[in-house]
Amino acid sequence: MKNLFIASFLILTIFAHSQSVQSPSKNITLTFAFAEKGKPTYTVFYKNKPIILQSYLGLLLKNGTDLASHFKIDSVGNKSVNEIWKPVLGEQSEIKNEYNEMTVALTQMATDKKMNIIFKVYNEGIAFRYDFPKQKDLNYFIVSDEVSEFNLTDNHKTFWIPGDFDSNEYPYSETSLSEINTDKTDLNNGIGMKSIAGKSVVQSPLMMKSKDNIYLNVFEAAVVNYPVMHLDVNTTQYKLTSHLVPNAIGDKAYLQTPCVSPWRTIMISDDARDIVSSKMILNLNDPCKIEDTSWIKPMKYVGIWWEMHVGKSTWDYAGSQNAQNSLSQDLLPSGKHGATTANTKRYIDFAAKNGFDGVLVEGWNTGWEDWFGNWKENVFDFVTPYPDFDLKEVTDYAKSKGIKMIMHHETSGSVANYERHLDRALDLMIKYGYPAAKSGYVGRIIPRGEFHDGQTMVNHFNFVAQRFADNNLMLNSHESSRPTGYSRTYPNYIAAEAARGNEFNAWSNGNPPMHETILPFTRLLGGPMDYTPGIFEIKMSFYDISKKEQVHTTLAKQLALYVTMYSPLQMAADLPENYEKYPDAFQFIKDVAVDWQESKYLEAEPGDYLTVARKDKKSEKWFLGSITDENARKTTIKLDFLSPNKKYKAIIYQDGKTADWKNNPINYDIKTIQVTSKSKINLILASGGGTAISFEPI
Amino acid sequence: MKNLFIASFLILTIFAHSQSVQSPSKNITLTFAFAEKGKPTYTVFYKNKPIILQSYLGLLLKNGTDLASHFKIDSVGNKSVNEIWKPVLGEQSEIKNEYNEMTVALTQMATDKKMNIIFKVYNEGIAFRYDFPKQKDLNYFIVSDEVSEFNLTDNHKTFWIPGDFDSNEYPYSETSLSEINTDKTDLNNGIGMKSIAGKSVVQSPLMMKSKDNIYLNVFEAAVVNYPVMHLDVNTTQYKLTSHLVPNAIGDKAYLQTPCVSPWRTIMISDDARDIVSSKMILNLNDPCKIEDTSWIKPMKYVGIWWEMHVGKSTWDYAGSQNAQNSLSQDLLPSGKHGATTANTKRYIDFAAKNGFDGVLVEGWNTGWEDWFGNWKENVFDFVTPYPDFDLKEVTDYAKSKGIKMIMHHETSGSVANYERHLDRALDLMIKYGYPAAKSGYVGRIIPRGEFHDGQTMVNHFNFVAQRFADNNLMLNSHESSRPTGYSRTYPNYIAAEAARGNEFNAWSNGNPPMHETILPFTRLLGGPMDYTPGIFEIKMSFYDISKKEQVHTTLAKQLALYVTMYSPLQMAADLPENYEKYPDAFQFIKDVAVDWQESKYLEAEPGDYLTVARKDKKSEKWFLGSITDENARKTTIKLDFLSPNKKYKAIIYQDGKTADWKNNPINYDIKTIQVTSKSKINLILASGGGTAISFEPI
Repeated sequence: MKNLFIASFLILTIFAHSQSVQSPSKNITLTFAFAEKGKPTYTVFYKNKPIILQSYLGLLLKNGTDLASHFKIDSVGNKSVNEIWKPVLGEQSEIKNEYNEMTVALTQMATDKKMNIIFKVYNEGIAFRYDFPKQKDLNYFIVSDEVSEFNLTDNHKTFWIPGDFDSNEYPYSETSLSEINTDKTDLNNGIGMKSIAGKSVVQSPLMMKSKDNIYLNVFEAAVVNYPVMHLDVNTTQYKLTSHLVPNAIGDKAYLQTPCVSPWRTIMISDDARDIVSSKMILNLNDPCKIEDTSWIKPMKYVGIWWEMHVGKSTWDYAGSQNAQNSLSQDLLPSGKHGATTANTKRYIDFAAKNGFDGVLVEGWNTGWEDWFGNWKENVFDFVTPYPDFDLKEVTDYAKSKGIKMIMHHETSGSVANYERHLDRALDLMIKYGYPAAKSGYVGRIIPRGEFHDGQTMVNHFNFVAQRFADNNLMLNSHESSRPTGYSRTYPNYIAAEAARGNEFNAWSNGNPPMHETILPFTRLLGGPMDYTPGIFEIKMSFYDISKKEQVHTTLAKQLALYVTMYSPLQMAADLPENYEKYPDAFQFIKDVAVDWQESKYLEAEPGDYLTVARKDKKSEKWFLGSITDENARKTTIKLDFLSPNKKYKAIIYQDGKTADWKNNPINYDIKTIQVTSKSKINLILASGGGTAISFEPI
Repeated sequence: MKNLFIASFLILTIFAHSQSVQSPSKNITLTFAFAEKGKPTYTVFYKNKPIILQSYLGLLLKNGTDLASHFKIDSVGNKSVNEIWKPVLGEQSEIKNEYNEMTVALTQMATDKKMNIIFKVYNEGIAFRYDFPKQKDLNYFIVSDEVSEFNLTDNHKTFWIPGDFDSNEYPYSETSLSEINTDKTDLNNGIGMKSIAGKSVVQSPLMMKSKDNIYLNVFEAAVVNYPVMHLDVNTTQYKLTSHLVPNAIGDKAYLQTPCVSPWRTIMISDDARDIVSSKMILNLNDPCKIEDTSWIKPMKYVGIWWEMHVGKSTWDYAGSQNAQNSLSQDLLPSGKHGATTANTKRYIDFAAKNGFDGVLVEGWNTGWEDWFGNWKENVFDFVTPYPDFDLKEVTDYAKSKGIKMIMHHETSGSVANYERHLDRALDLMIKYGYPAAKSGYVGRIIPRGEFHDGQTMVNHFNFVAQRFADNNLMLNSHESSRPTGYSRTYPNYIAAEAARGNEFNAWSNGNPPMHETILPFTRLLGGPMDYTPGIFEIKMSFYDISKKEQVHTTLAKQLALYVTMYSPLQMAADLPENYEKYPDAFQFIKDVAVDWQESKYLEAEPGDYLTVARKDKKSEKWFLGSITDENARKTTIKLDFLSPNKKYKAIIYQDGKTADWKNNPINYDIKTIQVTSKSKINLILASGGGTAISFEPI
């Protein structure tokens, strides 16, 4: 542990001229103090030990002035909050928001500029934000950099992905802080669009574990009108510094008082379950701004999608990816187009037969012949179907079968073009009764020079969610900046991808078995992920004998993901014909709920394993998911989360005896037993395996 | 004259390996030839003398390759065109498009890339463009620079404004080429937003006159999906080179084959009237793309606008320009707001009484309290009126009086925001029956880093015109890039400002008396200008005794501008109460037509004077406008343009005997005489003066 002497010294120094606030549990103490030249700093102690050493705070402005030094304290305000709110959709029907708050009101002495730093201390971590009140001497300003530091105590273990302004679709590296080096990550990873910020820049949320088994997670909440924060890692001094994503001309954020920065958060606990179950990020966002939320519904869906990933069909009608073909008046059909009226009806039939809510159809609209990789501005118009996709026939048919259609808006990164067409695109959805859309941002951003994670794009994603809300429509964005809890404010923003999803297993080196054990500690802290689980035909050689790609899990683990990867929008991603081959295993996907009364994180270790039990919001059914990384695992689970004095039929979907993600992934066993809250269950997970269980009261 | 020997030498050299094309009149000869290393060049002769010396052609691409050398000729194609087309609105009811064309098809030998250069030679000038056919080895490409040169023969006199990526609202400088220096122009000129490209960069159209009295004009036509071309001036070698406006990251144009560049044009004549009356720029644009144009109507209008410029009222409701006030829920009215329901009704009454078609109202919508100068993204929503402007009441009232309302969309340069709201803004116009809108782009462009004249903005302006057309709406843009004939293709793009308009006279050092004698040779070549003439209260001291600003013309010249400054959309810009004080002079504005059967340019000298006669499209009436610069002028005009064997009542609105733009601008005389086509009229124009005449058959 570095700087222990200095740290102790600081504690003493700080206490002389400092302001502190503690978590309700008293386990966490945050102290504000000035360093040299009136520079604001904070320090965090966990169970009386320093966990964040003295760290600078503040902002630098484009005009050369700073808001990071020469401050004095005007006042310090404190308050305690303990409240309950009810998410529209969620892991639990009620969320507790309990914290102690300290607002340090600062004035920069020479300039009379005012900045408040608001600290909130929760039982599972701390958060702070900059607050700029309306004031005479600070109206418009441009942020050139943020000073915010996270000065760590030691060379912690980290689970990191490279700081990339355009993509968060990386597999995680598990290294110590000192070993972080984006040059050494495997870049043969299937990501089309990369803008790596530097050798030692990583993305947040950054999950860490100290040598003395304290779990730390640095992230942010309520990123609104501000760029995404990546983290510069000082690999010798173990210090993280905010690295804001620039715009086309290098500026970071354009602000006008009164305004606030996003929250910078540090989750801290010696129990990993406190991190993975934390609702801190949601709590730090504004309450729901939609008055009537009755139209926001969870959805389990199938879709014309995986068949394109595996090469069975194509997004484009002409099947050519021929740049010029798309300009032609007369597209020549290739016969491989996935989004036909007939194929869509097949999916609708399958969805209706198996109790799904929705059907997604990608590739329904013109433009796919020349959509990717050329920074092309006018690709899609979001309203013109291919000649073999009859919008009215398809939507009428879906309606007759009680199925909701999910619209697809691939933007190819041409956001300017999407914004120009958005109102008409939404009008089309309303006309044909689509309640939700999946959007996509594959490609370099237009306006050119902007990045997926800059302020412009953050505003775009939030704007689109708001426009969807204005029209009572739900949104599921892919390739967006990663969520930071905005779904509390706009719960119609029902899910996002914004991380390496299951699709990478179809055509790249894929997602290693530990991947899904990390996402709940990182990406999922910000909001639901449309991971698209449920792949049964694990190996791509099934489609083409020459293919080596495969999903890096067992089939049973694919089932468990419906529980471990929380989302109120869940896809059964595989093909109908594949599900029909494994009806017994498919039963779990048909049964599993997607919106929850409560959730119990039973076991958690980032990069290793996760076991979660959740209770359906609408019934007394429980579902359990347990997953492991590349290591096989045995564990015993107490079922004390079940209601006492009730008997349950438990259907256990588990890895078969010889199952193994690599060599025998489809091998599974299903057994039905009777249990009560006093029962225990032994779980036996294969390498890359998992177990899924449904509990139904008898 | 420079290089005469070299020029003669070149003529000889070129003839050996060259391709030529002549104007139908044979006065102009253009020759294509290769210079060293297979570099394409052209040379132009006028009446057998060189007028453009050998000049390089081609483009440079971002990836380092060029399309400017190592070419060979594949083929040369020739054709002659002589056709007539009818503009929807215009200076004449029929336009002749007569030219000889030569297409030189080139292949770059090492790369097999193909580029055609298309030359068109008209009687009044030449044009060329680059044409990139669909081809295997050139699909997407990024233009980093354009090589196109205009290698002049001598140190011509020029009328220039600085090459500024964001503004064309400059007064002209009249200097020789060698004296061009933007550092020396008066920058105390009221322009809010400047991005001057360099010391010797000027804007096109660049009007020139050689020592042997040949008039030259370098411009461009059909700027579509391409940035505006400014001109780098070599002030010692008298060579102009294309200077394309960059985007946020320095790129110039993103293209995909098949595609074309805009036309580069050089008008050439020893009679200045050939330049000012040329329809070459319109001819070089695509024909009208709107099928039913019956809803496109000329308009003479008044509006709530000049009263804000003179300080009588304000655009904003709160009258504060207070940044924070605009955020307030409860705006406090200042009592000076111009766009009230009552004031609008007053203008509607005035318009109806005096036979106007429309009423413009600026400042009707929320946002004006904090709209300018801070690069603010979300300013206007284009749909929310101020509390004292009742949209329904106003539009119902206008309808009852037979008056069309003109919508106002100030974007403050936040184009991203405008595009997001455009559909809803147009819906509002349709709902309330607005047939047209005036748009504004005052401020730095958002997407940040873009310029008013870059490809992104060119596309924006054209996109907006198309969206207006989709909804049968007319558009009049202010602070846009200057038109290059797109109103042929989208005639609903009825007018634009895009130059220094009359408004500058209200609050800056204004427009010198020669200004309006130059605009027809520059800005107006690209399309109609909403110059907003008709100011009767010339001196701003009328409103505030301490003000020194004034319009730099006599009142009579303000009347003449309705004829000399062609636009199918003409404002009577002054206040109703001012017109009511001068009902005899106002009669001309009431009478003058705005759409024409034919136009006769009787006298023209850039920077000095202009006399035009035009025949109303719908009647036998003629109108004449004659203007001069700061020099008083006497001239005699033959009326042989009138129909023979007809008698006309001519009402002559002329400068009074002691009139003078500076000391006695409102002094005017009106007399009525009888004339025939055999009559002559002596015109006596004061310093900064003018004469307007209406001819009505008796």
